[in-house]
Amino acid sequence: MNATLPGAPGSLMTAEIAEQPLVIDRLTTHGRAACVDAATWVRGRAPRFVLLAARGTSDHAALYLKYLVEVRLGLPAGLMSPSTFTAYDARPDLRDVLVVALSQSGGSPDLSRSVETARACGATTLALTNHAGSPLAEAAEHHLELLAGPELAVAATKSYVAELVASWLLVDSWAGGDGDAVRALPDVVSGILGRRAEIAALADRFRFTDRVVLTGRGYSYPTAREAALKLMETSYVAAHAFSGADLLHGPLAMIDPDVPVVAVAPEGRGAQALRPVLELLHARGSDLTVVGGAGSRDLATTAFALDDDVPEELAPISSIVPLQLLALEMALARGHDPDRPRGLSKVTRSV
Amino acid sequence: MNATLPGAPGSLMTAEIAEQPLVIDRLTTHGRAACVDAATWVRGRAPRFVLLAARGTSDHAALYLKYLVEVRLGLPAGLMSPSTFTAYDARPDLRDVLVVALSQSGGSPDLSRSVETARACGATTLALTNHAGSPLAEAAEHHLELLAGPELAVAATKSYVAELVASWLLVDSWAGGDGDAVRALPDVVSGILGRRAEIAALADRFRFTDRVVLTGRGYSYPTAREAALKLMETSYVAAHAFSGADLLHGPLAMIDPDVPVVAVAPEGRGAQALRPVLELLHARGSDLTVVGGAGSRDLATTAFALDDDVPEELAPISSIVPLQLLALEMALARGHDPDRPRGLSKVTRSV
Repeated sequence: MNATLPGAPGSLMTAEIAEQPLVIDRLTTHGRAACVDAATWVRGRAPRFVLLAARGTSDHAALYLKYLVEVRLGLPAGLMSPSTFTAYDARPDLRDVLVVALSQSGGSPDLSRSVETARACGATTLALTNHAGSPLAEAAEHHLELLAGPELAVAATKSYVAELVASWLLVDSWAGGDGDAVRALPDVVSGILGRRAEIAALADRFRFTDRVVLTGRGYSYPTAREAALKLMETSYVAAHAFSGADLLHGPLAMIDPDVPVVAVAPEGRGAQALRPVLELLHARGSDLTVVGGAGSRDLATTAFALDDDVPEELAPISSIVPLQLLALEMALARGHDPDRPRGLSKVTRSV
Repeated sequence: MNATLPGAPGSLMTAEIAEQPLVIDRLTTHGRAACVDAATWVRGRAPRFVLLAARGTSDHAALYLKYLVEVRLGLPAGLMSPSTFTAYDARPDLRDVLVVALSQSGGSPDLSRSVETARACGATTLALTNHAGSPLAEAAEHHLELLAGPELAVAATKSYVAELVASWLLVDSWAGGDGDAVRALPDVVSGILGRRAEIAALADRFRFTDRVVLTGRGYSYPTAREAALKLMETSYVAAHAFSGADLLHGPLAMIDPDVPVVAVAPEGRGAQALRPVLELLHARGSDLTVVGGAGSRDLATTAFALDDDVPEELAPISSIVPLQLLALEMALARGHDPDRPRGLSKVTRSV
């Protein structure tokens, strides 16, 4: 199968993964001023607490933003449960609260309703979407456009990376940074895209598994979650993601040597905190694939090296890319079309 | 196998599941005054935001408490990421923030450190544990004891139910309630415990599956999460839990007719919000087991009826019980000892 021909299985997902260096570059150049404006506006509101609202892939970008807000801004943050607004009609006191909603389409009605309610309850509201004029963009006081271009593949890739970049630009500017560190990322991602043969070899090794467990800590935990979702929606494999700490509270029991474990561990404090977990898995004879730095790879059965000196808080932007490619390659190897997952459509309209 | 003989596989878990009516009764009678005191104390601090800290099973009780705080108290709430304190040394401004940490043992060092840090950052801190004098109980300003008695089984059951009851008593008193509604729960749980044969039949049907997907919305979502964890740690089945809304954002693709779906749907708004998801699963030919009320059971292949008129916000206390029993029965049917899951110990000491 050649996924690069138009109409071939996976051709949309392949093209959108490949666009990511361009998407990052566009956002960090043409999109940066809007992120700085949003940061200035939000800072002026002086929120004391941040709530994040999202579903699916965007929920993992929200989790990344949560870590950024807590670590770089020193503000407590949480993920919103939309059902408290939509199913239970809760009307909390949201003065001094910033609500950030993230969505590629901006079209999910339960997110728009949640943001409208939050705004009516006193929150400062900001939406990050790929569609100016979408219901969610209209519902929030302020909108940041992701500039990812039309995303046609059902499995979101470039819009996820755009959400991460926009989140970082927002928080970096809010914290008084100059936004420059992210400029290296397009080249880093291009470098990863050039290593497709390594990914194909990994996918071949996982071809017959029906389970995968992914793990990561801190900034890499959202990456593990997003990779699990991509594997579920394109390859139909039962992929679980656990933070390293939660893995030890129960799920460890189901990890036999016949269940591959993929650890997301680019260098940094998250990888250091994850190491005792990886040592335990190694000692139990687990098959361990490390997508990460040299500090974890000695424990691995197989590895995809990330040795690009990307600062840890930016690493989620590049470290998801080999895992997107893995989901794509696994789907193709198993004869599935990742552009047409069973039973899914691009925008979730109901519930 | 007779799991009721001391030393027999599952005898500890069996005994502790059976103790739950007593545990609920003890907490709602002897433990209630302490919950009221804690509520009075917390209300005096007038927190504006609530952060919850927990791991594993207790994290699902924390999620239940999050819904209670948002819906009944109208306060924004979020789950803490301990690694932001422990791995990244974040020192957020936590004035006006209540931090509630939940843990059976009170012995996980990363929770204690997180609570110490939160307290130093200005938070009001409350711990719910089963061990007065535990490091976590000492780290928090105020401690509520779960009174569940010693929990010896690795798979937590009665301490989880105690965490739910204590959470409800705390919030109900904080909201000015009289705490009476929960008094019906010991009898409801006893009734469920008497229906072991129904559970054994369900377990027999699931005997050969290596995957289960659980779903629920609102107050029932924590129940779906906790049931998935119990199945993973005792039966080693790849159990996923998704909120109904998230299920439609990707994971739906991996749900074939050969993957059983268990919906947690006691009557209420959560079940009403879940119904469109169950209709979609039904239309796709999914094998659907409903643990819940009559309003969802028409869509089910098999069901465990919950027709006990428990108010929705208390239903998590009883609706987890058939799922604990299911995990126990599945483990025994497959020849595993749920009291000795592979690779797990009772208290997670590291990371």
